[in-house]
Amino acid sequence: MRKPAATTGEERLIAKFFAPLAKHPGALELRDDTAVLTPPAGCDLVLTKDAIVAGVHFFPNDPADVIARKALRVNLSDLAAKGAAPAGFLMALALPGKTSERWLKSFAQGLGEDADVYACPLLGGDTVRTPGPLTISITAFGFVPHGKMVQRQRAKADDRVIVTGTIGDAALGLALRKDRKLAQRWKLSAKMQKHLASRYLLPRPRNVLATLLQENASAAMDVSDGLAGDLTKLCRASGVSAEVNVARVPLSDAARAVLAKDPSMLRAILSGGDDYEILCTVPRARSETFIAGAQALGVPAADIGHITAGQGAPDFVRDGRTINVGKAAYSHF
Amino acid sequence: MRKPAATTGEERLIAKFFAPLAKHPGALELRDDTAVLTPPAGCDLVLTKDAIVAGVHFFPNDPADVIARKALRVNLSDLAAKGAAPAGFLMALALPGKTSERWLKSFAQGLGEDADVYACPLLGGDTVRTPGPLTISITAFGFVPHGKMVQRQRAKADDRVIVTGTIGDAALGLALRKDRKLAQRWKLSAKMQKHLASRYLLPRPRNVLATLLQENASAAMDVSDGLAGDLTKLCRASGVSAEVNVARVPLSDAARAVLAKDPSMLRAILSGGDDYEILCTVPRARSETFIAGAQALGVPAADIGHITAGQGAPDFVRDGRTINVGKAAYSHF
Repeated sequence: MRKPAATTGEERLIAKFFAPLAKHPGALELRDDTAVLTPPAGCDLVLTKDAIVAGVHFFPNDPADVIARKALRVNLSDLAAKGAAPAGFLMALALPGKTSERWLKSFAQGLGEDADVYACPLLGGDTVRTPGPLTISITAFGFVPHGKMVQRQRAKADDRVIVTGTIGDAALGLALRKDRKLAQRWKLSAKMQKHLASRYLLPRPRNVLATLLQENASAAMDVSDGLAGDLTKLCRASGVSAEVNVARVPLSDAARAVLAKDPSMLRAILSGGDDYEILCTVPRARSETFIAGAQALGVPAADIGHITAGQGAPDFVRDGRTINVGKAAYSHF
Repeated sequence: MRKPAATTGEERLIAKFFAPLAKHPGALELRDDTAVLTPPAGCDLVLTKDAIVAGVHFFPNDPADVIARKALRVNLSDLAAKGAAPAGFLMALALPGKTSERWLKSFAQGLGEDADVYACPLLGGDTVRTPGPLTISITAFGFVPHGKMVQRQRAKADDRVIVTGTIGDAALGLALRKDRKLAQRWKLSAKMQKHLASRYLLPRPRNVLATLLQENASAAMDVSDGLAGDLTKLCRASGVSAEVNVARVPLSDAARAVLAKDPSMLRAILSGGDDYEILCTVPRARSETFIAGAQALGVPAADIGHITAGQGAPDFVRDGRTINVGKAAYSHF
């Protein structure tokens, strides 16, 4: 099912586009099937793996460098939420036959720039052909002091529920991309349209908060499948529930403008995917410290409610009434 | 590009089929986006990632449990060659829409059995939909004492070149599968046909040899893209060349029967893929120790030649003459 080739095209492709990115000594210049990493003494290793598929998680005509950055950043976002410092990543790249050298060059450039910016070097991987869509599976590694990984399952009643940045922009950006007429209907300025589009296109993982989360959060995860659904998962893992004050969920100007024209979009904002913000729970006594610390690091953080005893999906409360936000997360299944 | 669902089907799928496999405490019952691993003191972490795609690396109608085992075993084979003890793996599974519960059950069963047999537990991963073919990307982790990973790039002139098991069976098994008439032309017994078919279908990684390799090999890799091509890669990484005595390359009875009828198949035997045997170089003084040690562990190992100074593709010598074996490895590109 494979055909022979002289000095293998796979080796040439790796040498040309990806070996220049593999600057970490453990990558062995991508000349081995494996990589080697020496964990710092007293550290745990945090492992995460997210795959993205053209036509499912991104548009096939998105710029190649942006696709690469997204593939890496969705993994970096997981490490951030767990309080882990990035250590490196492996990538499996399944390429359709028609992939051009120009596309690969741009892809490798975006990947290399993000690897540098986030201090998360390429360590190795695998490159294969696929008769299907472009598929990128990245496994990222991070280090935390032993026992300090921030889990999902340790939220306690009375903890504050905190989210970073703004919620719902990516879901609105995706809606705009699928139906350009919405921009007119929502009377969005060019700047607002650009903001929402960019929030869908490319996550901005909050790795700068890793240590702060490690020191203060009782539980955390990144918001990738929608605030409502992801908070439900966090509560279920912790055996608790939560009450969220909808008025306190942080929104961008663009999202506020959309809501002013179409209040029914609240559901998309609260349950749409791809925010890649941090959702965490922090003991009440530390919540102000956490919020001030995040802001000092340039990341807005908002207290949106609290954890409650008992089980079940969280209540999203507006004007004293629980609203239906389609509680589940986005899912492919 | 995703649709909402109640309590997410992805969560149900993971809970039903994969959570029962995640017995390692660091897997966090697959209820987190990440896993956590505490490396033993003084150990390096060996990382490997191999992706397989339906229609490229296996036949879409192969049994589901066999596909799962193959996806894991090609990674285990890399760990074996590096002298590493398996520590666990992450899996990204891109599933076509039509995947049945029955298929998933069988897939998870095969995966779980191999995870137990090879002591390589499922730690986490990602499950996504694809409009394309089934794609499985596994990242496996192993531990070696610090600095002891067996690399490709340390073969030295005069080292012996050793391979385990038999070479070429998988390539012949694939040829048979693509053209059933070959079995008649080659006059193969039912047993021989079965042997070749099974060697293509499912690798038998040599993890039992990890410590022996660590203690004796100067360089090693697994033979996944054909002996000729993989030895070329090892030589190139080490800045050496090699001379192989073709008569000493270990062949199964079935492969010998094929060669007797069709001597031109020698090239497919020496350069065909999917052997998943160990190719290593061992200093002359230790080669007998290594071979005896492997045999004591139930793995045949054969001395097939030696490393030479200089560079370039290895010479495959038969009856005093260098033969053309289509020196490059199989490649998708």
